[in-house]
Amino acid sequence: MTPNITFLNLVHDELLEVETLIRAQAEGYHQDLQAALNHLLGSGGKRVRPAITLLISRILHAPHEKMINLAGSIELLHTATLVHDDLIDGSLLRRGIPTLNARWSPGATVLTGDFLFSAAAKLAADTDSIAVMKSFARTLSTIVNGEITQLFRSPCQLNREQYERQIYAKTGSLFELSSESAALISDTNCDVINAMRKYGYFIGIGFQIIDDILDFTGAQATLGKPVGNDLRQGIITLPAIIHLQDFAETPLVQEFVDRTCTPDDEQIALLVDQIRTSDSIHKAYLEAETYVKKGMEKLDLLPDCPERDALEELAQFIVRRDL
Amino acid sequence: MTPNITFLNLVHDELLEVETLIRAQAEGYHQDLQAALNHLLGSGGKRVRPAITLLISRILHAPHEKMINLAGSIELLHTATLVHDDLIDGSLLRRGIPTLNARWSPGATVLTGDFLFSAAAKLAADTDSIAVMKSFARTLSTIVNGEITQLFRSPCQLNREQYERQIYAKTGSLFELSSESAALISDTNCDVINAMRKYGYFIGIGFQIIDDILDFTGAQATLGKPVGNDLRQGIITLPAIIHLQDFAETPLVQEFVDRTCTPDDEQIALLVDQIRTSDSIHKAYLEAETYVKKGMEKLDLLPDCPERDALEELAQFIVRRDL
Repeated sequence: MTPNITFLNLVHDELLEVETLIRAQAEGYHQDLQAALNHLLGSGGKRVRPAITLLISRILHAPHEKMINLAGSIELLHTATLVHDDLIDGSLLRRGIPTLNARWSPGATVLTGDFLFSAAAKLAADTDSIAVMKSFARTLSTIVNGEITQLFRSPCQLNREQYERQIYAKTGSLFELSSESAALISDTNCDVINAMRKYGYFIGIGFQIIDDILDFTGAQATLGKPVGNDLRQGIITLPAIIHLQDFAETPLVQEFVDRTCTPDDEQIALLVDQIRTSDSIHKAYLEAETYVKKGMEKLDLLPDCPERDALEELAQFIVRRDL
Repeated sequence: MTPNITFLNLVHDELLEVETLIRAQAEGYHQDLQAALNHLLGSGGKRVRPAITLLISRILHAPHEKMINLAGSIELLHTATLVHDDLIDGSLLRRGIPTLNARWSPGATVLTGDFLFSAAAKLAADTDSIAVMKSFARTLSTIVNGEITQLFRSPCQLNREQYERQIYAKTGSLFELSSESAALISDTNCDVINAMRKYGYFIGIGFQIIDDILDFTGAQATLGKPVGNDLRQGIITLPAIIHLQDFAETPLVQEFVDRTCTPDDEQIALLVDQIRTSDSIHKAYLEAETYVKKGMEKLDLLPDCPERDALEELAQFIVRRDL
């Protein structure tokens, strides 16, 4: 079961403000953009990223309006990339809710994603921080570059270094933005800015490793996609990397490695099953835990306060969640 | 024949710098992004928008680096919207050169557009002007909203007011950004900023009207699409609006207006022919000329200098061009 998410309590009111702000971004624009925003916001994200931004902003006494704009910008940027992602993957469900492209034409979906980028950029500019804008733009480049790299890579070809780059692009970079930019809109020093950036980086990497583990261990109903979906699509994540290394001598793994260019459905199903029941999952979990712990250590620079406890709790939640 | 474009001469060196800067944006990212950028930049735009930015920046003594970043940002934003536009329309040619989506998968095309947005946002942030960033984000919202509106509108339903909103979203807004933001990065006053914004607005509207005229009068070879393509796709532009009004009593127009929900190919072909040979084209041309003249008047606030002459010439070019 997913543990209670108490770290959101402290910023409950701010999160509501962020949600109202996000929904207001389509006002004055085409009514279907408003409908799309409502649908996307209703599909139940946990708002982990804006919560990071808000908690750090509160600790560092960032101006209220700027921190709301910033958190809104980050959630919109995240949503925009998901919209284009789902379109490209042809995903029809996300968190059990129909994706935008399941209901809209590809053209409308592309444009809605673009609109979300523009709204995210507007809110980022509303922080009045050039440093935030630069981080925002760099993060978007990193995310998109990661997706392009994944799109053009031959299936089943991934080593550890590529995997780390990939999960940084996919998840780490946006967590990093969520935490670093909160420090950038505050009156603080470089050490704190760097520490906050690294907090986001480490827990973001941990978050993605757990996501990749859940792809093997989660129930199909909660994932909204078949178990072992990544491997079936030729995407080798940490549990598979560990498994292929640890069991390099077994016939199944040898055959799999030899046949990377022509993956065989039955063979992949067997391998998924083997990974699910091996200790490769546990080993991957320990790696995620190490990353998250490194992230938590970066909080030492902050004053002892309920918001810091919440950031610790948030980090722990990342490795304990089951969705 | 397209007249000689002498207004580019003054900023020839700066335009080369802009081009180099744009191509450098994909450095360190996936090699196919570099290839895409080279392909897109090689497809022969006239760089009218960055030329506006550079000429105004020079007159107002904007810092050199900022003006190059700004012009690069605007050209990249323009290119990004074209990439997604061509994908949505399924266009295979632009200016006679294959579009990105003619060669790449839809996914890669969406992502390349996204990358161009991120690169444009980065260069906009590199101007160190929050006002530019806000205008940049607002312009992207306007462009995308215009496209969504067009996508969801019933075919053949457009009045003059909707047309004006549409061409502002499609073209006017980006011309406005090109001129206004050059003033925003300069040390100047509100009157000049407003005048520059309006210069861009008026010549942008004029530019789009001429584009819409060329859709009727241009040669298929230079357009890269059939004559009267807009009307065939149910898009009613100014020549058609004027024609439908002036010839409201003729059987062909009456039948067309009555049958807006079920357009008939043969009927549209006849109407395209009628518009091409009527004075509706000339009337639309006069309207474009009026807009462009209004734009030129906004230059009065600027000191008399070769760059101002070039901005006048650029405005005149807009109504004289045949491509």
